[in-house]
Amino acid sequence: MEGEPISAPVHTCSGAGRGQSEDQRPEDDRPATQKLGVQLRPHMKTHKTLECADIMTGGSRRCIVVSTLAEACFYADHGFDDILYAYSLPFDKVERCAALSERLDLFQVLLDHPDALELLRKRPLRDGRQWHVWMKLDCGNGRAGVLHSEPGALRLAQDIAKTEGVELTGVYAHCGNTYGCRGVEQIHAVAQETTDLTLQFMEKLKAVGISCKSSIGSTPSCSHPVKDMAQLSEVHPGNYVFYDVQQSTIGSCSLEDVAVRVLTRVIGHCPHRNQLLIDCGWTGISLDGAGKLPTGYAVIEGHPNLKLVSVTQEHGRVEPMSGQLDYSRYPLGSLLTLIPYHSCAAAAMHPVYHVHSGGRLVGKWTPTRGW
Amino acid sequence: MEGEPISAPVHTCSGAGRGQSEDQRPEDDRPATQKLGVQLRPHMKTHKTLECADIMTGGSRRCIVVSTLAEACFYADHGFDDILYAYSLPFDKVERCAALSERLDLFQVLLDHPDALELLRKRPLRDGRQWHVWMKLDCGNGRAGVLHSEPGALRLAQDIAKTEGVELTGVYAHCGNTYGCRGVEQIHAVAQETTDLTLQFMEKLKAVGISCKSSIGSTPSCSHPVKDMAQLSEVHPGNYVFYDVQQSTIGSCSLEDVAVRVLTRVIGHCPHRNQLLIDCGWTGISLDGAGKLPTGYAVIEGHPNLKLVSVTQEHGRVEPMSGQLDYSRYPLGSLLTLIPYHSCAAAAMHPVYHVHSGGRLVGKWTPTRGW
Repeated sequence: MEGEPISAPVHTCSGAGRGQSEDQRPEDDRPATQKLGVQLRPHMKTHKTLECADIMTGGSRRCIVVSTLAEACFYADHGFDDILYAYSLPFDKVERCAALSERLDLFQVLLDHPDALELLRKRPLRDGRQWHVWMKLDCGNGRAGVLHSEPGALRLAQDIAKTEGVELTGVYAHCGNTYGCRGVEQIHAVAQETTDLTLQFMEKLKAVGISCKSSIGSTPSCSHPVKDMAQLSEVHPGNYVFYDVQQSTIGSCSLEDVAVRVLTRVIGHCPHRNQLLIDCGWTGISLDGAGKLPTGYAVIEGHPNLKLVSVTQEHGRVEPMSGQLDYSRYPLGSLLTLIPYHSCAAAAMHPVYHVHSGGRLVGKWTPTRGW
Repeated sequence: MEGEPISAPVHTCSGAGRGQSEDQRPEDDRPATQKLGVQLRPHMKTHKTLECADIMTGGSRRCIVVSTLAEACFYADHGFDDILYAYSLPFDKVERCAALSERLDLFQVLLDHPDALELLRKRPLRDGRQWHVWMKLDCGNGRAGVLHSEPGALRLAQDIAKTEGVELTGVYAHCGNTYGCRGVEQIHAVAQETTDLTLQFMEKLKAVGISCKSSIGSTPSCSHPVKDMAQLSEVHPGNYVFYDVQQSTIGSCSLEDVAVRVLTRVIGHCPHRNQLLIDCGWTGISLDGAGKLPTGYAVIEGHPNLKLVSVTQEHGRVEPMSGQLDYSRYPLGSLLTLIPYHSCAAAAMHPVYHVHSGGRLVGKWTPTRGW
């Protein structure tokens, strides 16, 4: 970064994490999903750039998941296809989804309620095309999806499968409950449970004559997959492209695996408060992680005794974990490097990412935003 | 809003708050700063749009404060002048500040440390121009600024005033400590203290033969100014353009004064958890306000029994404060209206604001972002 006119805060990315299972590294350095032999459908929500999407798809520009219709359109406009809009169909966006379905080879939507299916039925696609529909199953995450144990889950899947103009493409579960885990053993337990419940549901479908794909995902579970995940059709992690402090705390990765930073400069010395000020507030690092780390809103790389104790719009207050600050180590204008607690949240605050490799600025990547 | 293809979340603005002192409304409906007879230098950080800036400056496009150099350039590029970049001079941005100083009639910077002054001294402006410098004074807010009680404060002001090529334009204090207030009495106390300390400092300056402007600001203090603020040269509030739930909690305004909303749709029913899901997560409402309101991350307008209990990237979980949810009141696809806890933070998440007046969509305003 030396010699670069770095505007702080700056978002840096030194490479894409690969979802490796640490205990297998010495023997086999391939990404965890490759070793598993299961199709990776990477999620774009963390970065929302073309460049990271190319890295994550190996340049194929096929087989991705998105969290917003804005992302879907952005990727479609740039030659991507086989796009899964993995978000409970918003009722105001059916027409835009129809347009993408009629334009792409394979645009896929997701739903978890009969009313959403009814909307699709009322808007048949042109040229004999089918709506490609994933049904979301809640396997214990407690957010979107039909609860796996509800009789309505099988009924909805059957209804999707038998609706004219609609195809049941797959069953999709997000094991976001891995974010409450600490360590590989706990991650494995949640991954196993989600896999078991999903595969049991696939068996129920098979018993009524329905076959379709299955997919589960979350960065923790896909960084430390269980063997049975090989029986799924796909996995769909996203955050692993950057990783972050939260993932290192969960046990998905080590802190050294984190590929994203926010650079900031010291802009104030406050010896009467034993603090210094940096030019990164919540517009640069986000408010995610508040109260969750001993080092505050981020980890300050190379300075384990520093804590980012508070952030306002454009200011951060930094103080030592213990003792008195040695201000000669932090002259005004000097750079500090923040490792974000949650890279999705920090990335969302930035209109551009400055990409570094081997200490040199090698590119600027522009994410899409909005809905 | 009826009939509009509202993409959720949507940011709406139905008018600009005016910083009124409620107890004076029946007699005098003019904005508080007008009644005070002091120059208003509105802050752009909350909205960062041309349109709100026109409202706040009465169309003059003069006399504004900005929090980032990106804002300064954005407004300069659109014909604004008399711009104060009220942020402790970042050492990497001196050249860009010099360019604005040489281009505009009146571009003003701010500093609070001798090292920053030294940087300006080393970069004399062309064509005999002067650096216009405000010195930031910390009157108890505890963020940026030289502490008012430090001998170094007067010394720095004197050094600024006597440095060749540099003019001491004013003394600037931010009474952000009003954000800890509850009610007008407490706001008045902080406003009075900040005013007193600033005016006392101006007296010290006068005693050594220096005269310059003075300015204090924060939306709470400027919504409920104390009389002595009339002795200042300027005030510089910003959030009042939108207000928010936080300001209503402080006592700056009533909830009815808040001009900004995030619209969201119901996308999920979760009767087994007594919750519903909305398509607004932290990308739509921000994470500001966590744990600070009985209604969660926002106030859900017209539904006092609902609480936004958690937000992830694109989802919000809503549950009743008590009792069982009546899902027939919230069909999938129906709209809910969120009043943000902190409008600066919610606005920062949106690439465009949809502007409503009298129930009709009247415009789309695009903020600037970055640094």
